Amino acid sequence: MKIHNFSAGPSILPQEVMQQAAAAVQNLDNSGLSLLEISHRSKAFVAVMDEACETAIRLTGLENKGYKALFLQGGASLQFLMVAYNLLENKAGYVNTGTWSSNAIKEAKALGTVVELASSKEQNFNYIPKGFDIPSDLDYVHLTTNNTIFGTQLKTIPETPVPLTADMSSDIFSREWDYSKFDLFYAGAQKNMGPAGTTLVIIKEALLDKVSRHIPSMLKYKTHWEKDSMFNTPPVFAVYTSLLNLRWVEAQGGLKALGAKNAAKASLIYDEIDRNSKFEGFAAVEDRSAMNATFNLVNPDDAEAFDKIWNAAGVSGLKGHRSVGGYRASMYNALSIDSVQVLVDCMQTLEENY
Amino acid sequence: MKIHNFSAGPSILPQEVMQQAAAAVQNLDNSGLSLLEISHRSKAFVAVMDEACETAIRLTGLENKGYKALFLQGGASLQFLMVAYNLLENKAGYVNTGTWSSNAIKEAKALGTVVELASSKEQNFNYIPKGFDIPSDLDYVHLTTNNTIFGTQLKTIPETPVPLTADMSSDIFSREWDYSKFDLFYAGAQKNMGPAGTTLVIIKEALLDKVSRHIPSMLKYKTHWEKDSMFNTPPVFAVYTSLLNLRWVEAQGGLKALGAKNAAKASLIYDEIDRNSKFEGFAAVEDRSAMNATFNLVNPDDAEAFDKIWNAAGVSGLKGHRSVGGYRASMYNALSIDSVQVLVDCMQTLEENY
Repeated sequence: MKIHNFSAGPSILPQEVMQQAAAAVQNLDNSGLSLLEISHRSKAFVAVMDEACETAIRLTGLENKGYKALFLQGGASLQFLMVAYNLLENKAGYVNTGTWSSNAIKEAKALGTVVELASSKEQNFNYIPKGFDIPSDLDYVHLTTNNTIFGTQLKTIPETPVPLTADMSSDIFSREWDYSKFDLFYAGAQKNMGPAGTTLVIIKEALLDKVSRHIPSMLKYKTHWEKDSMFNTPPVFAVYTSLLNLRWVEAQGGLKALGAKNAAKASLIYDEIDRNSKFEGFAAVEDRSAMNATFNLVNPDDAEAFDKIWNAAGVSGLKGHRSVGGYRASMYNALSIDSVQVLVDCMQTLEENY
Repeated sequence: MKIHNFSAGPSILPQEVMQQAAAAVQNLDNSGLSLLEISHRSKAFVAVMDEACETAIRLTGLENKGYKALFLQGGASLQFLMVAYNLLENKAGYVNTGTWSSNAIKEAKALGTVVELASSKEQNFNYIPKGFDIPSDLDYVHLTTNNTIFGTQLKTIPETPVPLTADMSSDIFSREWDYSKFDLFYAGAQKNMGPAGTTLVIIKEALLDKVSRHIPSMLKYKTHWEKDSMFNTPPVFAVYTSLLNLRWVEAQGGLKALGAKNAAKASLIYDEIDRNSKFEGFAAVEDRSAMNATFNLVNPDDAEAFDKIWNAAGVSGLKGHRSVGGYRASMYNALSIDSVQVLVDCMQTLEENY
C-alpha cells in the first residue's frame, strides 16, 4: 500500500532523492567508494559542499548580494544560541509565535536584553501578530516564519529599521518571496531541505563582527564563513542529500513553481476543513500555514472512526502536537497533491458515514 | 579494482554496514518509509537511539556504573567547548599531544585557567608525554587518546586525583581497555563509529552539575542527559548507521577481538617500516598508533615511484597530513589485514625495484 506521509519532520523527501542518496551510500559516482568513507577534503566532497551552498543562494535569489550559505550542525536550537551570541550586544527584539520562538527567546535572554515585540501566546499561538512597533535601537529582530506546531505562517515580511533574522526551519524553499529582506536566516534541514543532521544558515557578511564578547570558535559565524563550512568535518551525508533535494527543487521549476504547488495543496485541505461539518481549523484563517494544516474534530467522539478511515487509506503522521491536539497535516514540498486528496477523501468519508 | 581505503576520516566502514544503511534510506525495515522521512519520536527511531546508546555502553563495559551515552552533533570541536563549559569552574589540566589537543586547550582557555600539564610540541608531537604531575586542585584533566595527524596513541591511562576526560575520536571501540577510568569521553563518529554527523559522548552522572556559570541549553550535558539525546531532532541517519556499525563491532567479538585484529595490522605495517630501507617511521616506537601509521621516505626522490606503485595497487587516502608530510596509513576497525598486506607489498616493490 502506498503511504501518504504527512509527518511534521523529519518528513517526506522526493523518492528520487532517496534513491540517489541510497546509491551514493553504496558507491559514489562510480568511484568504488561510499559517500560515507571519503575525506571531506576530497575533491568530490568539496564540490558537493560548494554546489549545495551555491544552489541555496541561487534558489533564494541572493547571488552577489553579500550573503553566504553555511551548512552547520546542531539544528535550529543551536541557532537560537548562535544568533544571540553573534549579534546581541545590548538589546534584541523577538516576536513570539510559538514553542520555537519561545525557545529562541530563552537562549537569547541569557546573553542580553530581549524585548518581546509581540506575542500570540494568549491565544495559544493561533495567529501571527502584526502591526507592532520595532524600535530602532535594537541590535536585530528575530521572527519564526512558520510555526510547525500551531500551523501559522508569516505572509508579509515586516519592514525593520534594524537587521532582520528568522528561523525558517519549516518553510524554507517552499515559496517565492524576498529573501533579501532578511540579513540572516536559518533552517534545520529535516523538512523542506533534506534529512535531519544539518542546518542551513544564510548570512550577510555585514553581520559577522557585531559584538564585543568572546565567541567560541564553533559558535562563531565568522569561523564557518572563513572556512566555507569546513572548519571541522561536516555532516557529509546530510549535506549531500540536501544537495540532491535542492537540485530537485530547481528541476521542479524552483520556488515559484513549488510555491504554486504548495498553495494548491493548502487550498485543497483548507477548503475541505471549512466545508466539512465534522472539522474546524485551529489557526486564524489569514495566517494559515501552507506547510502545516492544524485542525480538530468538532465532536471528539468521532476520533476513533476518523483514525480508522485514514489509517486504512495509508495516511501517516497525522497526529496533532500535544500543544494543539487534533490533527496536523504537514504538506512539505515533496508531498504530492494526490496525497492531500486522499486525506480530503477520508474527511469526506467520515462526514458521509458518521 | 578493489580500493584499499586508508583514509584518515571520514573513513572506511564495513561493506555490510554501507549496504544496510543504503537499504534503510530506501525502505526502513519494510515499513514502506525511508529512514529519512520518519519522525524522530516514532517508535522505530526511539528504539534505534536506545539500542545505539545501550550498545555503546555495553561495548565499553560501563553498564550500571552511572554513565549514559549521548549522541550529539557538532563533532569533537563542539566537545572542546562543551567540556570546558560544563566542567571548568577554576582550573583544568590539559595534555597537549597535537593539533586537536591544542584546539581543545584554546576553547577552554576562554572559560577559565588552563594548565598545560605536558606537551610534545617541541618535537612536532611525535611522542606521548608521560610521568607528569597532576595537581589535585584541578577541576579535571583532558587527554587525546589517539593523535590522527601525528600517529601517536596513549597506551597507559594515567592515574588522576581529579575527573579524567578524553577525546577518543580516532580510536574509540578499537581496543579493550578500562573505560571506567574516564569520567567523560567523546568521539566524532567518522572513524571507528559511523558516518560523519554525530558525536558520541559518554559521561558520568556525577559530572552534570559541576559549575556555577549559566550554560546554554544546547551546550549543557544535563539537557541531553535528561532528554536521552532527543532535546531536538537528532541526526537520524548518522545515529542509525552508527548503530549498524556498533552491531557489527559486537558481531566481530567486541573490542577484545577487534583490538587483536588492529594490533596484528599495526605489527604488519610497522615491522615493514622498520625493516624496509626505503622508509622510516615518524612517531616514537613505544607510542605508535594502531590506528594511524605515519611514515616517510628516507629519500624523498622516491616519492614519484612509490606513489605510482600504490596508486596502481588500488591504495587510497595515503597522503600524510601537511604537519608531518610523507604518508599516513589509517587502519580503522573496518580495514582488513589484506589491505595492509597490499600496502606492505607496495613498500617492498619500491625497495626491490628502485
